[in-house]
Amino acid sequence: MKIYGKHYQTIWETDERVSSVSIIDQRLLPFEFKIVQLSKLEDFLFAIKEMQVRGAPLIGVTTAYALYFAVRDVSSSKFEDALESSSEKLLSTRPTAVNLRNAIQGCLSKISKEADKEAKVNAILSYARNLWSSDIEICKKIGFLGMELLKDIYNRKRDTVNILTHCNAGWLATIDYGTALSPVYFARDAGIPLHIWVDETRPLNQGARLTAFELLHEGIPHTIIADNTGGYLMQKGMVDIVIVGTDRTTRTGDVANKIGTYLKALAAKDNGVPFYVALPSSSIDWNITDGLKEIPIEERDASEVKYLMGKHKDSIGNVLICPEESPALNYAFDITPARLVTGFITERGICPASEEGLLSLFPEMKGGKDESGR
Amino acid sequence: MKIYGKHYQTIWETDERVSSVSIIDQRLLPFEFKIVQLSKLEDFLFAIKEMQVRGAPLIGVTTAYALYFAVRDVSSSKFEDALESSSEKLLSTRPTAVNLRNAIQGCLSKISKEADKEAKVNAILSYARNLWSSDIEICKKIGFLGMELLKDIYNRKRDTVNILTHCNAGWLATIDYGTALSPVYFARDAGIPLHIWVDETRPLNQGARLTAFELLHEGIPHTIIADNTGGYLMQKGMVDIVIVGTDRTTRTGDVANKIGTYLKALAAKDNGVPFYVALPSSSIDWNITDGLKEIPIEERDASEVKYLMGKHKDSIGNVLICPEESPALNYAFDITPARLVTGFITERGICPASEEGLLSLFPEMKGGKDESGR
Repeated sequence: MKIYGKHYQTIWETDERVSSVSIIDQRLLPFEFKIVQLSKLEDFLFAIKEMQVRGAPLIGVTTAYALYFAVRDVSSSKFEDALESSSEKLLSTRPTAVNLRNAIQGCLSKISKEADKEAKVNAILSYARNLWSSDIEICKKIGFLGMELLKDIYNRKRDTVNILTHCNAGWLATIDYGTALSPVYFARDAGIPLHIWVDETRPLNQGARLTAFELLHEGIPHTIIADNTGGYLMQKGMVDIVIVGTDRTTRTGDVANKIGTYLKALAAKDNGVPFYVALPSSSIDWNITDGLKEIPIEERDASEVKYLMGKHKDSIGNVLICPEESPALNYAFDITPARLVTGFITERGICPASEEGLLSLFPEMKGGKDESGR
Repeated sequence: MKIYGKHYQTIWETDERVSSVSIIDQRLLPFEFKIVQLSKLEDFLFAIKEMQVRGAPLIGVTTAYALYFAVRDVSSSKFEDALESSSEKLLSTRPTAVNLRNAIQGCLSKISKEADKEAKVNAILSYARNLWSSDIEICKKIGFLGMELLKDIYNRKRDTVNILTHCNAGWLATIDYGTALSPVYFARDAGIPLHIWVDETRPLNQGARLTAFELLHEGIPHTIIADNTGGYLMQKGMVDIVIVGTDRTTRTGDVANKIGTYLKALAAKDNGVPFYVALPSSSIDWNITDGLKEIPIEERDASEVKYLMGKHKDSIGNVLICPEESPALNYAFDITPARLVTGFITERGICPASEEGLLSLFPEMKGGKDESGR
């Protein structure tokens, strides 16, 4: 999608020799548009942990490239050790997003034990590239299929469709197009009048910083609201549909997503507003059935609650927003139970938020737990 | 209650001649503790509108003093005009809080048509003083009665009682003690171990700034959380009770309170957590029965969402937290329907959140609409 009129993706190989990959440092958006090169494992660990890159699908692709750079220059004898230790380090950066684990398992599954080191390294690179391009394809499918929901609302209402979204599940969270916002981009292209309510999404304000930024650069009407506001808008009939992304979804349809998603789902239920979760099937964890009990919720540093990044005149910095002595707690995700979700928008279609619903689209997962390394 | 170990109230007559009233400029807390004098109507309008003072009960008392200063130096012939025009100006500052209107009506009801100007002015001053002292008494009663709820939880649990609160309904929102936090102070004095989850309460962060500040200075354990977090804490059994204040409550028990309250009430209901609203009966609007339809919701300037006050090194200022070109919307309150409220803590006791419940404590209001000017 576009920034200042030019087409970008969130991660790309810097040159033909793949001397590094380039990313947009998302921590600085919307105030500064800075491209950063990653070529050492440490660069990648920092980028994921500190959220230069974020969003489940983008974390997945970044992880695959991280493994490539972690092993490509080690000697043959150290290959296995390097692979294992870097996998562990990557896994510890963000515990909730299943795409990170899936990307590691995906890489490992592509490595033939018999191959020489060069071939193994190439297998990882090729896995990363495939993940990159398949993510774009998947997001396009989600957008094309999800657009139908917005079309239906427009056909009924014959007026601007008001969509509420939480956090950033736009193209900046993926490689391109996004998950929750992909239907918005497709609907815009189809001429449907739209307006997006953008939850600011404290503490890291991915909504106010990133979602607003990408909608602004794509010219889509939007309004930023405090996270507290969505319930009242629904009470007043000002929201036609909620669409969010997810970091991990159980086979039974419980959704781990950015903290606060659960509150919006409750309000949607209470006001009869459809609540959809857009998800690439890579973020389904087929091995678990109880979101609250089984999904580890990342606890991030309290300073992210107590300090907030903003711009004052021409300088960007963190300001303290509470008494310095007061403690704070910073869970990054919550669990929206399947019963509050109207449906899932996946790359294979739209289905109810239940094991049955998911299996109707992914029948190959019927056999019980996932052993495929997906 | 205490600031830096010294006892303060939120508003007081500066000297014996009442040359002005003194307030704490709450906009600057917790970063700067500054006392301001108000003696002209414009001072009061600014103080209420710009939220140097805020909280329904404190707004009520400030309004009564505002009327006193608005008329005390006008000539006899201009008294009625001054009273009327200043009442109108005051009413337009904050449309949601019913205490503002009640304070004006209360003043008017004390003015005898036959009295001379001096007597009328004195009647207003005496009304303001009575409102001031009765507010303290009412908050103490709410605290004493509400403490029983916390005691019950402690007796059952025999461990720290975790209370979640939204916005600031502590002593800074009243004259002293507070509404929602008054039971906390009484329970602390009774030796019950407590811990408060403090919703930061975007956009103006009354929780992170004011509630944390007052709990810190009273030595009560607390933790600041993003507004998004309370739902997950309830899912995890980390909240024993929610207590909030209110700006206006209908005779049927619908509660207008700081935006986001409704979302916490939904989460409390969904997780079986008791949800109480502490209220002086002065914030009940006996004339209305449907909160969503009849309570005007104040829309404040979008800049309060887009800019956030914080401290950087030694300077306090506003930082931009989103793209400058993106619009924002800033509703200050939402409506929590009575069905989501476990009960009301009033100065006369605790009752269910319903017309029946309220009338059981305030039987004098049974005769239908309130004509008393309360």
